[in-house]
Amino acid sequence: MIIKCMKSELISGINIVSKAVPSRTTLSIQECILIDARTSAITLTANDMEMGIETQITGIVEEKGAAAIDARMLSDIIRKLPENEVTISADENFHVKIVCEKANFQIMGKEWEDFSRIPYLEREEPVEISQFSLKEMIRQTIFSIAVNDSNKIMTGELFEINENILRVISLDGHRISIRTLAMKNNYPSRSVIVPGKTLQEIFKILPGDTESNVEIYFTQNHIMFVFDSTTVVSRLIEGTYFRVDQMISNDYETKVTINRRELVDCIDRSILLIREEDRKPIILNIANQKMELRINSQIGSMDEEIDIEMEGRDIMIGFNPKYLIDALRVIDDEKVDIYYMNAKAPCFIRDAAGSYIYLVLPVNFVV
Amino acid sequence: MIIKCMKSELISGINIVSKAVPSRTTLSIQECILIDARTSAITLTANDMEMGIETQITGIVEEKGAAAIDARMLSDIIRKLPENEVTISADENFHVKIVCEKANFQIMGKEWEDFSRIPYLEREEPVEISQFSLKEMIRQTIFSIAVNDSNKIMTGELFEINENILRVISLDGHRISIRTLAMKNNYPSRSVIVPGKTLQEIFKILPGDTESNVEIYFTQNHIMFVFDSTTVVSRLIEGTYFRVDQMISNDYETKVTINRRELVDCIDRSILLIREEDRKPIILNIANQKMELRINSQIGSMDEEIDIEMEGRDIMIGFNPKYLIDALRVIDDEKVDIYYMNAKAPCFIRDAAGSYIYLVLPVNFVV
Repeated sequence: MIIKCMKSELISGINIVSKAVPSRTTLSIQECILIDARTSAITLTANDMEMGIETQITGIVEEKGAAAIDARMLSDIIRKLPENEVTISADENFHVKIVCEKANFQIMGKEWEDFSRIPYLEREEPVEISQFSLKEMIRQTIFSIAVNDSNKIMTGELFEINENILRVISLDGHRISIRTLAMKNNYPSRSVIVPGKTLQEIFKILPGDTESNVEIYFTQNHIMFVFDSTTVVSRLIEGTYFRVDQMISNDYETKVTINRRELVDCIDRSILLIREEDRKPIILNIANQKMELRINSQIGSMDEEIDIEMEGRDIMIGFNPKYLIDALRVIDDEKVDIYYMNAKAPCFIRDAAGSYIYLVLPVNFVV
Repeated sequence: MIIKCMKSELISGINIVSKAVPSRTTLSIQECILIDARTSAITLTANDMEMGIETQITGIVEEKGAAAIDARMLSDIIRKLPENEVTISADENFHVKIVCEKANFQIMGKEWEDFSRIPYLEREEPVEISQFSLKEMIRQTIFSIAVNDSNKIMTGELFEINENILRVISLDGHRISIRTLAMKNNYPSRSVIVPGKTLQEIFKILPGDTESNVEIYFTQNHIMFVFDSTTVVSRLIEGTYFRVDQMISNDYETKVTINRRELVDCIDRSILLIREEDRKPIILNIANQKMELRINSQIGSMDEEIDIEMEGRDIMIGFNPKYLIDALRVIDDEKVDIYYMNAKAPCFIRDAAGSYIYLVLPVNFVV
């Protein structure tokens, strides 16, 4: 194989596929990036066996072939080269040469035929949404997946399609995040659980253009995202997702409209007083068109008052401040509406259009 | 004590003195920042008992007094406050209140009378140099102090004054860095060893203005740097420094003039092929107005050629690439002169004006 590409083109391709290079694996061949130039196109692939990413880069194939090169080494070398054309060649003994201007590197590649490529999926009936929308939906829900996988399903997000509505849901036992998007077309109903890790990586590599689309394909066990010259294939998480709709309620006793930024800043300050070990709640005292926030911990205490608009009964309720702030941070609205039932029931942060719903469970507290 | 300061003023004061807060200590009181407002001035102090920093900040003293507040906690709280005036008060029971707009923090301070302030030194006969020059001299030598303190003297830098010449020297057994500065005045001869840690922290907090000066005071056991409203006092390292002058030679067999950037980039690339465990040298082959750089490691090999101007004999010599690149990186000149004697003798990187000399020992290699 002999290919010639601009350094910048190689870097952007490597940056994309690197997200699927396993950090720890017993399959050392999968620590490589596969450079496939067996046709006139140049494709880079990485695959950690849960998720695989393939991307095409622009360049000239001078001699057809392929090479599997340790991802870290390839990335490090290319990054340090001058900003110019890079020639990568590999012979049948897997000797790899990387040349740019007067710099010559010689390293060992691996048996590229052993490399597990991404699975082949039929490209039928894609769901299409803009890159921007997908990126936003991931950002606005990904924070509330469960971090440890004692319950595997909680480490993923539900992607649910009903006619022209896409809903993305995550939950971790303390809170639920729901984002809803009206799409341009109707699609057959589907409901799949996508690994959180896959979505986190897609979030990083998706340019997020409003004008460009992502095509999403579904099969029994896989989901595939296709955008620009990149394809991401991921296994799905098996199982049935939680019945979220029965946890959501539109009833409330107290409705608060509050400046989101002020509330975020205030909670952010209160978090300073909490050490990992003591899970002190932040206590909201809502009355007289004001929300008083208060926290007491071993370190000290803090209180602050924010002007609000409110309807309904006064309420005093405690929350894990992290769960409140996580949801508030991803909302773009200047003002948010928060609905409370009583001190034992979850609060709901949601907009009138129904594009997002965040449910946060309260915690008990001693006054 | 009650003081009022703008948040920005507090932040910059805290940032300066924080450099002297010990990261680990058995004296928990020294983990505090002392706020001293017993006069109409407000002074912040931190002291890890090797180095102490004191800085004055602008603000109003409404009630005279002092407080010792955990440095981390103080810094975290102030940072999260709105950009506005902050009131800090402390009572005789060390209850501290921090108030900004509607945010109220209450935390516990410590017994400020137990806090070890910086030692009082007579301010006589300062040596004066510009902030810029001191900052540059530190930057251009600090990298070659020894990191582990099996030899305590090597962890410091020699500050040597002779008439109007200041020389700063560091060495670690593999290399020597020397920077020389002609000052405006003559001073009595002095020679002290300043802890590298002190210089690293001064480098961080020194604004580096060409128009403003640093006053440097010397006593038997301490050195004191005074600039803007900040005073840094550090213990000196006891002992006699190495006799560096007898290691320096002006003889050479080969003189090379080379583009510094090209050489740095090339060595930087070669370092990729070296793992911590195998200390492979980079081999320079100097002949025919070219320098060929070559490295061979378990990972692979790399070679590259750079056009040079040379005088004298051809030479092939090996170096630890890190030691070469460290020196080359801190030099500002576009082209550097490198002098070689033979493959067993150190090379010297030095300018015609004698403002810097970098000595690097070669390493053996097998061709």
